[in-house]
Amino acid sequence: MVDQPIGVIDSGVGGLTVARELMRQLPREELIYLGDTLRCPYGPRPEQEVVQFTKELVNFLMGKRIKMLVIACNTATAFTLELLQKELPIPVIGVIQPGARAAIKSTENLHIGVIGTEGTIKSQAYPTALKNINEEIHINALACPRFVPIVEQGKLSGEETYRIVAETLIPMKESNHIDTLILGCTHYPLLREVIQKVIGDKVTIISSGEETAREVSTILEYQSKLFNGDRKPQHKLYTTGKLTVFESIAKSWLDQPVMEIANVSLTV
Amino acid sequence: MVDQPIGVIDSGVGGLTVARELMRQLPREELIYLGDTLRCPYGPRPEQEVVQFTKELVNFLMGKRIKMLVIACNTATAFTLELLQKELPIPVIGVIQPGARAAIKSTENLHIGVIGTEGTIKSQAYPTALKNINEEIHINALACPRFVPIVEQGKLSGEETYRIVAETLIPMKESNHIDTLILGCTHYPLLREVIQKVIGDKVTIISSGEETAREVSTILEYQSKLFNGDRKPQHKLYTTGKLTVFESIAKSWLDQPVMEIANVSLTV
Repeated sequence: MVDQPIGVIDSGVGGLTVARELMRQLPREELIYLGDTLRCPYGPRPEQEVVQFTKELVNFLMGKRIKMLVIACNTATAFTLELLQKELPIPVIGVIQPGARAAIKSTENLHIGVIGTEGTIKSQAYPTALKNINEEIHINALACPRFVPIVEQGKLSGEETYRIVAETLIPMKESNHIDTLILGCTHYPLLREVIQKVIGDKVTIISSGEETAREVSTILEYQSKLFNGDRKPQHKLYTTGKLTVFESIAKSWLDQPVMEIANVSLTV
Repeated sequence: MVDQPIGVIDSGVGGLTVARELMRQLPREELIYLGDTLRCPYGPRPEQEVVQFTKELVNFLMGKRIKMLVIACNTATAFTLELLQKELPIPVIGVIQPGARAAIKSTENLHIGVIGTEGTIKSQAYPTALKNINEEIHINALACPRFVPIVEQGKLSGEETYRIVAETLIPMKESNHIDTLILGCTHYPLLREVIQKVIGDKVTIISSGEETAREVSTILEYQSKLFNGDRKPQHKLYTTGKLTVFESIAKSWLDQPVMEIANVSLTV
């Protein structure tokens, strides 16, 4: 049981930042990652479609005997977390609650900023999660539709990237109230340095992905499901899209060797 | 069920730093705190005695219908966590694993320092927790028996305090390797500023208490036991020792009003 892998799903490559953190914080655990690159992005899609696509990803991983499921996509978490927690016989965790909780721990003035895709921001998932815990939290939420494309193009720094980030974050910067900013999209940690420069040193940046990795550790330990033997983990990565692009991004983002990278088809 | 209080036990007043964090991070939850001030400190006591005393504290709180137990004392966690997790029908969390997990998330060079009482350091609880997750972590552990007395005397700053902290931390400071330091005693967050000054800005300080409050939130939410209605929480604090001393410390450390502070006797 404890030697089974942790399953990670995402709409594409963004969730690899969560996988990287899982590998770093839980170096004994094995991961199986499935990114739906073919149908990425989920952000602008209607809820029903996101639910359907996510269920297809889950079905594939459940066939691989995973011991826990990580929904490493904010949009999919917003639309499917409660449903999957009810339906699946294994623990399911999304990226939103861990990010919200870390922000609540960090904030001193109770003013928290959230940036994410249009889908995530429209879903109100972060404000709901934050206010469920503390209704006095003030939330400044902003959709940043231009961020995912620049990450997917690998433009993680440079003048153009700085300009796009700066232009996008103006309304948040000008409000000048937040002391904590949640990166509510798993692509955004790759822009972290630029975002920090734009938003200023006084704002604590919370990466939902890093926080999720930590909570996976909390829940697995609480359930006595952490692997505690000796082995060299054999991570496996799957994509529904083009293997070459996915493979080159995975190799450049992950610090760890991967046993298998393959293309899979979800539709019969 | 969700409206039941969270129980917090400690050998004395140190666990109030955990209670304060619980009140801050989970402002809707009600707490019942029991500090064994009469028999404090637990640090130098033999294991069997710590187990016996802790069970007496737990019995008192179980009579108050708590929905979760927080062992807010590192020594008691080291000696009783596994036992209580097996025996009690409610979730039980200690302060050691959350501190260890936060340090693993924080460290970049895999060199982590731990300071605590003699009992905690001798128990090897932190090295065990850290190495269970990542066996490549290097640990520099140091007992600081002079810290609890200065905190209990309220000497949280000033020349004498600085001197004592500086003298104690010399071996850790000189090793010059750690990038993360775990405050492995719930008294130490009250000396945080002095410790940070002595150990230097480059070392990230992890307060096990703050991290524990966050993991209480994780586990309660995972179990659907977070309170989500409207109420003004009625916190209750109990001590086995002198009420006046306990009350004055509680009032100066906690930011929240407390409904009841009382002295209780555990032995029949």
